[in-house]
Amino acid sequence: MKIGIVGAGQLARMIALAGYPLEMQFLFLDPSADACAAPLGELLLGDYDDPALLQRLAAEADVVTYEFENVPPASIAYLEGHCPVYPNSRSLATARDRLHEKTLLNQLGIVTAPFAAVDSLAELQQAVSELGLPAVLKTRTLGYDGKGQAVLRKPDDIEAAWQQLGGVPLILEGFVNFTREVSIIAVRGRDGECRFYPLAENTHRNGILHLSVSCPNDPLQGQAEAYADKLLAALDYVGVMALELFQADDTLIANEMAPRVHNSGHWSIEGAETSQFENHLRAIAGLPLGSTAARGHAAMLNYIGELPDTHKVLAAGAHLHRYGKAPRPGRKVAHATVCATDAQALQRRLTRLLAD
Amino acid sequence: MKIGIVGAGQLARMIALAGYPLEMQFLFLDPSADACAAPLGELLLGDYDDPALLQRLAAEADVVTYEFENVPPASIAYLEGHCPVYPNSRSLATARDRLHEKTLLNQLGIVTAPFAAVDSLAELQQAVSELGLPAVLKTRTLGYDGKGQAVLRKPDDIEAAWQQLGGVPLILEGFVNFTREVSIIAVRGRDGECRFYPLAENTHRNGILHLSVSCPNDPLQGQAEAYADKLLAALDYVGVMALELFQADDTLIANEMAPRVHNSGHWSIEGAETSQFENHLRAIAGLPLGSTAARGHAAMLNYIGELPDTHKVLAAGAHLHRYGKAPRPGRKVAHATVCATDAQALQRRLTRLLAD
Repeated sequence: MKIGIVGAGQLARMIALAGYPLEMQFLFLDPSADACAAPLGELLLGDYDDPALLQRLAAEADVVTYEFENVPPASIAYLEGHCPVYPNSRSLATARDRLHEKTLLNQLGIVTAPFAAVDSLAELQQAVSELGLPAVLKTRTLGYDGKGQAVLRKPDDIEAAWQQLGGVPLILEGFVNFTREVSIIAVRGRDGECRFYPLAENTHRNGILHLSVSCPNDPLQGQAEAYADKLLAALDYVGVMALELFQADDTLIANEMAPRVHNSGHWSIEGAETSQFENHLRAIAGLPLGSTAARGHAAMLNYIGELPDTHKVLAAGAHLHRYGKAPRPGRKVAHATVCATDAQALQRRLTRLLAD
Repeated sequence: MKIGIVGAGQLARMIALAGYPLEMQFLFLDPSADACAAPLGELLLGDYDDPALLQRLAAEADVVTYEFENVPPASIAYLEGHCPVYPNSRSLATARDRLHEKTLLNQLGIVTAPFAAVDSLAELQQAVSELGLPAVLKTRTLGYDGKGQAVLRKPDDIEAAWQQLGGVPLILEGFVNFTREVSIIAVRGRDGECRFYPLAENTHRNGILHLSVSCPNDPLQGQAEAYADKLLAALDYVGVMALELFQADDTLIANEMAPRVHNSGHWSIEGAETSQFENHLRAIAGLPLGSTAARGHAAMLNYIGELPDTHKVLAAGAHLHRYGKAPRPGRKVAHATVCATDAQALQRRLTRLLAD
């Protein structure tokens, strides 16, 4: 089976590595000649909206998926007209637009921060008066890793935030006083079967994920699964999805979904019976899903901007995943995973890894 | 780091898959244009003794290894003169010749079946009179998967066996009344550090490995490790080695070594903290070795001659590794692994897998 992937970055690379044992072949569409997944398949080199390349992708791939949500919706719509594409364009459109996303979540009874659409300074002032301060102004589309956001703490910040972000559709979100950030990775097969990974607890640095720790048997697992289950069903979703959540008291507040394999699920390569990458492929290929059960406890540490010393990481008892990307500031270039049979042993291993 | 591999079959394929996360690149030498590891690197297409290709391999690879022992010794000797090659040529030469191998094992105090070199019918008759019947006549080199062997049960078999195998250097081995066949996968780093995987219990069909079951905490683990430890040190071995053993009463009798990753260690991909493939790469690259500890219990089932139904294997809760090879009789084309937290649960999963 030939899998087409829009994008050939580290997520596509790890998907491909998971697909080789199932004898899958890969065809990537990416504008970068040195895209890091390229050595694992054939690269269609060009823009994500190149009509000739999209035509080839649809013609040659048995099924198409994508590794990031900032792919042009028209490209996915075109592909969807010519070959199976998972997740479907509706899921992508929902995930791409914070307003659509939060509206759907609320319709499904999933708790979110209060929010309001903002398309003018007057609307922003009105929204602030309704939601109060602090609040976060975000672009509705194309935001990631903390980009396209401004925190409003006092009335003076309103106009500055508008100057910074105005001109594109925005959303103002009420501030959530959360005790921790978690995410749930879920997978839904073509036949509608859903499976859920244990929650991961996430720590960010400068808006970029720094650390994810798997939480087997977390008391909020059931609540997170219920959220994800509703969302997957509502979107007729196929593949792996991530849902990022804030915990406030004993309630989970949905922040955003990612219609793809997700950085906070990288621990599953070593820490779960079946990795998120393999389960994404199984789902979109119509194969039986694999167990999402944790294998002990696991933690994943991101390396951003510069590569770690391989010797030190391995000597600390970790597994290292280098992405084959040239380091530059803010760029995710590798991650390490540590595993242990219990949370205390995991903490010791993680401490050792972080000490280097 | 660029790794050169002589051979581009399924072992090279699984080595390469283990190496991508460490950002290794691969250069294969193989005479088959459709060699199944080829999509994972660059293929030097030609014979194993092609001087120009060996020169390129030595020039372009940072370190060279091989995936099978039937590579021409002169090729490895040439490579060794021009770049680091692991395991070294002495290990290869020892493993290639059953007489040298058993002689070294005995010198190290490692128990083997009694044996005698046989180069003529008269020597065969003499050897039979010394070792008794039944006995097994084998070619000293180039035997694998039960090929190049004849069992002698009665005096009449002597001449027939000689007719079948005579003309190349032979070895007669006394028959071992064993209760089970096991193997130990060991790895030794460039710095001399050794690690040992839990024993695997192996079942053969028609001379080809059919099933390997990991045996964490086996009472004979210490004996097997002591054997492997001596052998690795004596050969100044670097990389993964397999030592096949028979158990007779409470004694392990060494049968043969393989100077490479081994089919009876495939369970380690899912069943150990670090797979044999990754540890082979870490060893030859001079990186710290990974933990060889078992993650619960695991069993590996070979598919020989024909591919299994992927749906059925995955639905049985197994992981499937298809090698990308066209099926033909006697050819290893895939394997499946089942894992469980205890031996009883493993047996249930294995029974389900075997039932399909």
